Amino acid sequence: MKLLLLSNSSAPGRAYLDHAREVIADHLAGIEELLFVPYALADHDGYTAKVASFMDGLGIRVSGVHTADDPRAAVAAARAVFIGGGNSFRLLKSLQERGLTEAITRRVCQDGVPYMGSSAGTNMACPTLRTTNDMPIVQPASFETLGLVPFQINPHYLDPQPGSAHMGETREERLTQFLHENDVPVLGLREGTWLRRADDALELGGVAAGARLFTTDADPAEYAPGADLSHLLSARVRFDHRAA
Amino acid sequence: MKLLLLSNSSAPGRAYLDHAREVIADHLAGIEELLFVPYALADHDGYTAKVASFMDGLGIRVSGVHTADDPRAAVAAARAVFIGGGNSFRLLKSLQERGLTEAITRRVCQDGVPYMGSSAGTNMACPTLRTTNDMPIVQPASFETLGLVPFQINPHYLDPQPGSAHMGETREERLTQFLHENDVPVLGLREGTWLRRADDALELGGVAAGARLFTTDADPAEYAPGADLSHLLSARVRFDHRAA
Repeated sequence: MKLLLLSNSSAPGRAYLDHAREVIADHLAGIEELLFVPYALADHDGYTAKVASFMDGLGIRVSGVHTADDPRAAVAAARAVFIGGGNSFRLLKSLQERGLTEAITRRVCQDGVPYMGSSAGTNMACPTLRTTNDMPIVQPASFETLGLVPFQINPHYLDPQPGSAHMGETREERLTQFLHENDVPVLGLREGTWLRRADDALELGGVAAGARLFTTDADPAEYAPGADLSHLLSARVRFDHRAA
Repeated sequence: MKLLLLSNSSAPGRAYLDHAREVIADHLAGIEELLFVPYALADHDGYTAKVASFMDGLGIRVSGVHTADDPRAAVAAARAVFIGGGNSFRLLKSLQERGLTEAITRRVCQDGVPYMGSSAGTNMACPTLRTTNDMPIVQPASFETLGLVPFQINPHYLDPQPGSAHMGETREERLTQFLHENDVPVLGLREGTWLRRADDALELGGVAAGARLFTTDADPAEYAPGADLSHLLSARVRFDHRAA
């Protein structure tokens, strides 16, 4: 299995995806055409054009799954799949309505087609939507996502900001609430970081700030780029453990 | 119908609910006992004790619905209901599992029992959960909430912060995404503000910053404390209008 899961698609002062150009080129080496899933944003054509413009620089053609007469057939024939960021509830609902969650999972897990996600597309790679930062603007049939990894990821992970006037929960407080209900590791991927999976190996990449891992049985742990996180692929997970 | 919907329960440098003491006292005038719904937080007893401590100053006894043998009967007998803040997904799931959404709606809409909500408890008063700020740490059976008002509220409404390094969406961008999918007014209640409903009258209260109203057919509009928002009670609402 080949996964590249980006925390974010845009970095300050950089063009779309430019901060991850090298790792994307490596992940998609040998790929000539990519199937792009634009459902997280409202403007599917515009979003696909933006991705095509970036991928053109890598010599990769892009087709938007929304233009296919049969989106499931398009997934079954895809040589690589990229799900872009936006609103993860809208994205999941669109995937479900088109029967694409199973189709993509099968193509990636069984056929070994490279999967790339950024932000909401990284949320999709987890077992559930439960650690998204997005507003639930529409109601998906369920929170079940692709399950390409067995643990949860929180993209755009943000450290508490000292001196903030905001009285709402910090991200860490939100993830602590998640852990109270679910005995499932959550990796907070800071902006500019990503995860790469090659079969049973999982490695953190990107900027020095790295990632913060939250679990029910230990204090949060910090990981730097290059860290081997393969143990998360065999983590024990129990959703709704408090209810059980 | 009597509603008091607070954006938040804690203000900087003030004790729990203290910033709204006067309006709460007025809303609950003549009430001797309040039924508190603590499900949004994990520690039901601790949360109920905190509310009891505040209400004690107003001469009001508090019982936690979680201590009732039959929570639905407790709602049916309640003289006033207060749903506190916390995680709105956990709250809604708990209400649904106990059959309390219908019970509370009936008690408030048909019997005229005063309802008070703060944060997640204010989310509950809307038709759906779709404009919560919370993380979906558990999956409720549906996003349908109490529907005590026909429009949506975004509690803890936060203006864009100039110079923030955060690359995620601003609150206004999130609500704009909501409006793209739903033709339903959303009132962004800034910290320290609240709404009061008395039958067909709806008024904004609280700090000068006031509230910001988002609709599909006009630019966002600002309202100051004292503003008459009764027109929102007869607003045309259409969820999932883009899908329809």
